Amino acid sequence: MRDVSIIGIGQTPVGEHWDKSLKELAGQAVEAAIADAHVERVDALYVGNMLSGVLSGQEHLGALVADWVGLRGVEAVKIEAACGSGAAALRLGYVAVAGELADVVVVAGVEKMTDRPGQTVTAALAMASDGDFEAQNGLSFVALNALLMRRYMHEYGVQHRDFAPFTINAHKNAVANPNAMFPHLVTAEDFYSARMIADPVNLLDSSPVCDGAAAVVLCPTEMARSFSDRPVRIRASASATDTVALHDRRDLLGMEAVAASAAKAYRQAKVTAADIDLFELHDAFTIMSVLSLEACGFADRGRGVHLAADGDIAIGGRIPVTTMGGLKARGHPVGATGIYQAIEVALQLRGQAGANQVPKSRLGMAQNIGGSGATVVTTIFEAAD
Amino acid sequence: MRDVSIIGIGQTPVGEHWDKSLKELAGQAVEAAIADAHVERVDALYVGNMLSGVLSGQEHLGALVADWVGLRGVEAVKIEAACGSGAAALRLGYVAVAGELADVVVVAGVEKMTDRPGQTVTAALAMASDGDFEAQNGLSFVALNALLMRRYMHEYGVQHRDFAPFTINAHKNAVANPNAMFPHLVTAEDFYSARMIADPVNLLDSSPVCDGAAAVVLCPTEMARSFSDRPVRIRASASATDTVALHDRRDLLGMEAVAASAAKAYRQAKVTAADIDLFELHDAFTIMSVLSLEACGFADRGRGVHLAADGDIAIGGRIPVTTMGGLKARGHPVGATGIYQAIEVALQLRGQAGANQVPKSRLGMAQNIGGSGATVVTTIFEAAD
Repeated sequence: MRDVSIIGIGQTPVGEHWDKSLKELAGQAVEAAIADAHVERVDALYVGNMLSGVLSGQEHLGALVADWVGLRGVEAVKIEAACGSGAAALRLGYVAVAGELADVVVVAGVEKMTDRPGQTVTAALAMASDGDFEAQNGLSFVALNALLMRRYMHEYGVQHRDFAPFTINAHKNAVANPNAMFPHLVTAEDFYSARMIADPVNLLDSSPVCDGAAAVVLCPTEMARSFSDRPVRIRASASATDTVALHDRRDLLGMEAVAASAAKAYRQAKVTAADIDLFELHDAFTIMSVLSLEACGFADRGRGVHLAADGDIAIGGRIPVTTMGGLKARGHPVGATGIYQAIEVALQLRGQAGANQVPKSRLGMAQNIGGSGATVVTTIFEAAD
Repeated sequence: MRDVSIIGIGQTPVGEHWDKSLKELAGQAVEAAIADAHVERVDALYVGNMLSGVLSGQEHLGALVADWVGLRGVEAVKIEAACGSGAAALRLGYVAVAGELADVVVVAGVEKMTDRPGQTVTAALAMASDGDFEAQNGLSFVALNALLMRRYMHEYGVQHRDFAPFTINAHKNAVANPNAMFPHLVTAEDFYSARMIADPVNLLDSSPVCDGAAAVVLCPTEMARSFSDRPVRIRASASATDTVALHDRRDLLGMEAVAASAAKAYRQAKVTAADIDLFELHDAFTIMSVLSLEACGFADRGRGVHLAADGDIAIGGRIPVTTMGGLKARGHPVGATGIYQAIEVALQLRGQAGANQVPKSRLGMAQNIGGSGATVVTTIFEAAD
């Protein structure tokens, strides 16, 4: 097995891209990543995407994007794992390079969600749940997170307002991110008075419906220096699953797949949670941030919610999260999110995070989640020497 | 890189499975494959599927099927490459095992297409085409194949009736296949008088809309004998793409991705077309059989259509194709087809093809195509010593 590095990154702004089709949006990110990597040959293209069929009437994104970006003929495929599609594609790209089946692999994530009316998108996102038991009975994705949040508040005696600092932190970090959808500050008052979506999840607990594409180029670390003077090593890549339906979970707030995926990643990288300098977590909803921090070992059960108030998650804090705005404020074009996260960690480890630079960051972790914790991909990155 | 073998196979009958949801259908095949392989541990599950979102309102099939079959926690993901999704998943399973990232991988393919009205399925299948240029302008998938067939007839001066022997052969071979959707004979007269779908493609040129699931278990060849006394080696696994839109092709009838994928596979296996004992080709439409046979080197350009009439494609002929009925008569549940093909080759090489056994078969090839030749995965299998 070979060591693998990221040698190129590319992203579009997250927002509403009504003037671009899926392949145009993905193409913009892929072309930027290839240019950043200075590669002249690509062996394979993996595209993470969840909803192209339902929302754009387009499947077969692998071949479609490959041809569009000038890679006609190359091996290409689409990978789907709900909102974890991006990192699932990254994981398979990693497998191909680590296993010596390919040398240079481009991994893209793309999603277009804003061309359709809101009700359609809500129904489409519910396809990440167990259709036989959840979506069929009217549970939307926000509603599933509301169940988790309500249970957390009940178990640990916390209030909805206790989640506010996660949103405030994310928006603060988005201000300096030119690709963020909401680069503006949010106050505690804004959070308390935000419109209710599915009690207790309100608008400012929730990441937005949006469009975006992001791409990275992978190659063996031994070749990386010939392309990039700032390669970023993938120290660990680990995936785990849990039941899709919440009612089947052994421990509703335990996030077993988050814990299993993180544990595997720590083991591969030979590190512990204490060694991680920053964590791009999957803050699709504030409750997911809290549960992820706990299951990954950054806080005890029932204590994760307090990390934000204590300042631990801020840049300069003990474990900075959503350093470029996260899903909440950068945006969450679902199948692209895992690649945005990887890019943001890479920018930090390359020392290119600008105003959001986490000082002395050497090990960064990204975690992309599909469904309410049913598919979890955890990746640990390390700055080049 | 390690040598990889198939150690277990499982399939459902192809047909209309209105009483089963996607996960139940996939689960039936996966459980059968795991039982056949006698494995107690599985490292990953890859699920090939194209249309679960549009036709069943369900994405996230990886985690969903994993939990359903008792593999809760395992790495799992869905792979999509239009009608080539099944073999694309098989290819990624091969990559994981060959590259030593996993030891035991289950690869499943599943599709449910019959629960929705015909117009919806036609629109859904058109998502394999280039939406911006083809589907948006009203081109259905049958229509795209009609364009290819008409051009072939024009270029080489052949008649529609010349394609009849492909359908007759497929149906003849389906009779003894207990999993075939149409296990009955078709005559030349039936073919000539079949209802027109998109001129010149008629009903008996076309594979059916149907449901089905199939699964295989992969492991390193060096471990295979401890599970199975009849493992089937994967001698080559190769994928290539072409433009999705037909109008962008450099050579409309040349099927460049078919040729490239086959050439890579021959090179990996160190064989030529002449060494292949049977060929499970992608006969979604009779024209695809002809173009594949030519691009893979079994016939010169313009001569592929005559192989059937000469008896070359029959069991006992020079290059038997669709030995268990093919897409035409076994059925074409699109995302599952690539796995059905792999299983049928495996049955031949295990000597378990019953009345359809190709005598002395040692090397079998399967080729799964997404779109009208845009994603092509070619796999060469070899019987164990």
